[in-house]
Amino acid sequence: MKTPLAASALVLLSTGAFAETIGQNALKRVAPALEAYTTGPLQADVWENETLAERDRALVTFAAMLTRHEVGLLPDHIALALDAGVSPAEISETITHLAFYSGWGNAIAAAEAAAPVFEARGVDIADLPPVSPELLPLNEEAEAARDQMVRNNFGEVSPGVVDNTRDLLFRDLWLRPDLAPRDRSLVTVAALVAAGQPEQMPFHLSRAMDNGLTQDEAGEVLSHLAFYAGWPRVFSAMPVAKQVFEQRAE
Amino acid sequence: MKTPLAASALVLLSTGAFAETIGQNALKRVAPALEAYTTGPLQADVWENETLAERDRALVTFAAMLTRHEVGLLPDHIALALDAGVSPAEISETITHLAFYSGWGNAIAAAEAAAPVFEARGVDIADLPPVSPELLPLNEEAEAARDQMVRNNFGEVSPGVVDNTRDLLFRDLWLRPDLAPRDRSLVTVAALVAAGQPEQMPFHLSRAMDNGLTQDEAGEVLSHLAFYAGWPRVFSAMPVAKQVFEQRAE
Amino acid sequence: MKTPLAASALVLLSTGAFAETIGQNALKRVAPALEAYTTGPLQADVWENETLAERDRALVTFAAMLTRHEVGLLPDHIALALDAGVSPAEISETITHLAFYSGWGNAIAAAEAAAPVFEARGVDIADLPPVSPELLPLNEEAEAARDQMVRNNFGEVSPGVVDNTRDLLFRDLWLRPDLAPRDRSLVTVAALVAAGQPEQMPFHLSRAMDNGLTQDEAGEVLSHLAFYAGWPRVFSAMPVAKQVFEQRAE
Repeated sequence: MKTPLAASALVLLSTGAFAETIGQNALKRVAPALEAYTTGPLQADVWENETLAERDRALVTFAAMLTRHEVGLLPDHIALALDAGVSPAEISETITHLAFYSGWGNAIAAAEAAAPVFEARGVDIADLPPVSPELLPLNEEAEAARDQMVRNNFGEVSPGVVDNTRDLLFRDLWLRPDLAPRDRSLVTVAALVAAGQPEQMPFHLSRAMDNGLTQDEAGEVLSHLAFYAGWPRVFSAMPVAKQVFEQRAE
Repeated sequence: MKTPLAASALVLLSTGAFAETIGQNALKRVAPALEAYTTGPLQADVWENETLAERDRALVTFAAMLTRHEVGLLPDHIALALDAGVSPAEISETITHLAFYSGWGNAIAAAEAAAPVFEARGVDIADLPPVSPELLPLNEEAEAARDQMVRNNFGEVSPGVVDNTRDLLFRDLWLRPDLAPRDRSLVTVAALVAAGQPEQMPFHLSRAMDNGLTQDEAGEVLSHLAFYAGWPRVFSAMPVAKQVFEQRAE
Repeated sequence: MKTPLAASALVLLSTGAFAETIGQNALKRVAPALEAYTTGPLQADVWENETLAERDRALVTFAAMLTRHEVGLLPDHIALALDAGVSPAEISETITHLAFYSGWGNAIAAAEAAAPVFEARGVDIADLPPVSPELLPLNEEAEAARDQMVRNNFGEVSPGVVDNTRDLLFRDLWLRPDLAPRDRSLVTVAALVAAGQPEQMPFHLSRAMDNGLTQDEAGEVLSHLAFYAGWPRVFSAMPVAKQVFEQRAE
């Protein structure tokens, strides 16, 4: 059976960049059962489940690994994402986005992991998002309301956070065109689940659904992330997702 | 005084795999005080305290380090666990178990760290748990109740999570015989403390005690983990442990 | 424009230890926009903002990276901290302090990252804090009250944690003179924000302010950490900071 990882491995083999599928050799010698869980339930069942597109799965997995600072696994998973249809520009923009949402150090490590993969595939600087593109239009009213609420709550606590959130995030980063708002939300939610921050999910999951993520997709993102972020992270995220789904259904 | 780490270092020296005790050389040149805390309070007092067996301490430490993705320290601590009486099969099964409870990437990195240690010690594939062993008997009634509760709560949120939890975790992984249920619970609780997820502890700590972990041992697991996961993780876990202990005493 | 990172890079270049500013080369090839956010908003605006001293920013950044186990970035940031006026003794003592507050493995990895930087700069063992210095005076009454409260709550849950907290932390580590109590509190708060443990912040943020950290500085620590620990960590910390500020103003 052709699995995404097996397909990726073929590409990798043909470029000579990697000798085998991800981690497989160590699993064979140390944990054959885990290898079987990987090739069976994870690769053949989860990755093939069309409730969530393979391309979305690759993006979600990359966001989780970047957030968890799993630097050794990043190159293979960046290659896998490219094979699954994520563009180099989207990888680039995801790294930039998650610098803000999971910390600069994670993003720098991901850039260092991506650099040789991009080089091996001939990705050129012209394929990457420019520093200052024409921004997407802003919903001024919604943003003004968001800013006012945060400013009322925290303007006295940390004016720097409040100003940077407005100027750098919501009037700049989120409006950059080379990662669709729905995908920006998708990687943000994945990062929040992976980081163990369900308390920050309501705003971003709701925004993800406003931006086009369906409830079925959101549920399947959790199912996918159980493998990559661990079951407990997802079990802490499920009550929050439930509440968001229910409030939107009212 | 012979400490577990010193004993381990001797073994390591004799295999030529490592030149010194874990991190000791860097500590000497950068933080002599930390070296003194390590050889004194941590190695001579904590590791020698018999409230928790040395073998359990090694398993708990390994679970915490795997969960924290401290890949540079894993090889020495896998060697230490083997010296302390954890079998290669138990290491293998712990890695497989924690793939589900702390994420695939952590488990793959741990397998990669274990592979050369296993090779240096002549661990053979035949020493490892088979992919499909005869499973331990299942308490059908308890599992049906657990599944029903989760399904009622989250069946609409993420059917994939609910089904995989039943099929992969409670009707498969937890029944694999090469890691005792008590030890499976022990590494699960250690992973939850290390990951900062006290909110997921009540079920698993209670299950650990059902599976044979005593209250004194559980309290000492927290004392041990304060060093390896940091004091704040343990201070957030203590109120949860207190509540579990009190509810079981009623 | 001279930024702290650019200044650091010059020093690094002149020692031959590093070929360029931190991560810059990978950012150029993978995420030019993130490079622009780094040199502009982060280095030229945030690091130059005098609400928080550059030396404090370097200490906070180091504490966050140590806590997040970003080992690849630690050497450059230790060099940066030394350039910003943090002494080798303070780096050493911060590593020792955070062994307790963010886990032994993080501290060992930081010591391993610091060792070559210290060596390249000729830091001698005599420059480092001794194992057993004369301790700062203890506020016996306050410490007795703290111990009694923790003992009442958790003495039955984990006597080991309660005793070690008294003997190793509050009657020893916190009294070591080579890192000022205000700076000890500063790195502790930074570690708690970076680890995603706002629930442990009230005691330590209040203690930081007792030890001399101003409210403006505390707010700016959050603004600084948004970049290095990610926005969501800081947004979860802000309500806690707000409550601490308000309670102290009563």
